[in-house]
Amino acid sequence: MTFDYEDAIAMLSRTPRVLDAWLRDLPSGWIAGTEGPSTWSPFDVVGHLIHGERTDWMTRVDHLLAHGESAPFPVFDRFAQFAASKDRTLGELLDTFAALREDSLRRLRALHLTTADLERPGRHPEFGRVTLGEHLSTWVVHDLDHLVQIARVMGRQYSAAVGPWRKYLRIIE
Amino acid sequence: MTFDYEDAIAMLSRTPRVLDAWLRDLPSGWIAGTEGPSTWSPFDVVGHLIHGERTDWMTRVDHLLAHGESAPFPVFDRFAQFAASKDRTLGELLDTFAALREDSLRRLRALHLTTADLERPGRHPEFGRVTLGEHLSTWVVHDLDHLVQIARVMGRQYSAAVGPWRKYLRIIE
Repeated sequence: MTFDYEDAIAMLSRTPRVLDAWLRDLPSGWIAGTEGPSTWSPFDVVGHLIHGERTDWMTRVDHLLAHGESAPFPVFDRFAQFAASKDRTLGELLDTFAALREDSLRRLRALHLTTADLERPGRHPEFGRVTLGEHLSTWVVHDLDHLVQIARVMGRQYSAAVGPWRKYLRIIE
Repeated sequence: MTFDYEDAIAMLSRTPRVLDAWLRDLPSGWIAGTEGPSTWSPFDVVGHLIHGERTDWMTRVDHLLAHGESAPFPVFDRFAQFAASKDRTLGELLDTFAALREDSLRRLRALHLTTADLERPGRHPEFGRVTLGEHLSTWVVHDLDHLVQIARVMGRQYSAAVGPWRKYLRIIE
């Protein structure tokens, strides 16, 4: 598929609802479990998505439209959620993410971007020249990547419990 | 985590809601896309989950409780959904899966199984001796494995669209 605004917004708008249906009020073993030291729990992932919403996705869209290739994007802190999520409940994080995502998509729609705009360039601190279309596509896949991570982390809590079936369970094996 | 009925039922009961929040009315490019020849689309995966509900999970629980190790489980057809899903809409499949899963969990609860029952043995056609606890744990992880698959298949539709960011997107790279 090539990037399409409506396809992308359809997916991006669903992510908070998917997380809510999946994680709200789930027993804490699933929510707090990780894949080992220095890996993230589902709780941590929701915090990461919140931080992306606050400082990455639409922030970089605005930056790219304002500066083009003349100024690189600000660097994104991949670990900010550990401080920001402290003392908050998962329910609060899910509510926050849903509200921020709704606002992000409202801002995106308000820009009335066209297919031609997808070619507009920006500068990534590591990659150099990137396009608006690549950035927006990455937003979608980044959501999906973290849904994969949440499923994988939760599935691995039963790595031993499944016994010989692990052979056929790709997220464990 | 060791297997726990309430943990497992909490997860199993959410899967239809997650799929509904995610896939219902999503543009067809996401629903019908695959990872290439002989791979499954999200539509195919929902059909597979329906078939598992009809012929695998609670069917094997009943079989194990009735026969123990004396008779192997019937073999599960991993490709039955291609015929069964033909001419049906995704909305119909989501409704069917939700109803079947609800019925499965009602049947599971009605058995009033205990922690001691988790050690009860059955015979798998390939693995030989397995336990009820391993089978039930596998049911949970199987759901999660297919949620991973759906996210991965959808994310890969944008493999080219994300440009250099693919380096940081685990489901593509």
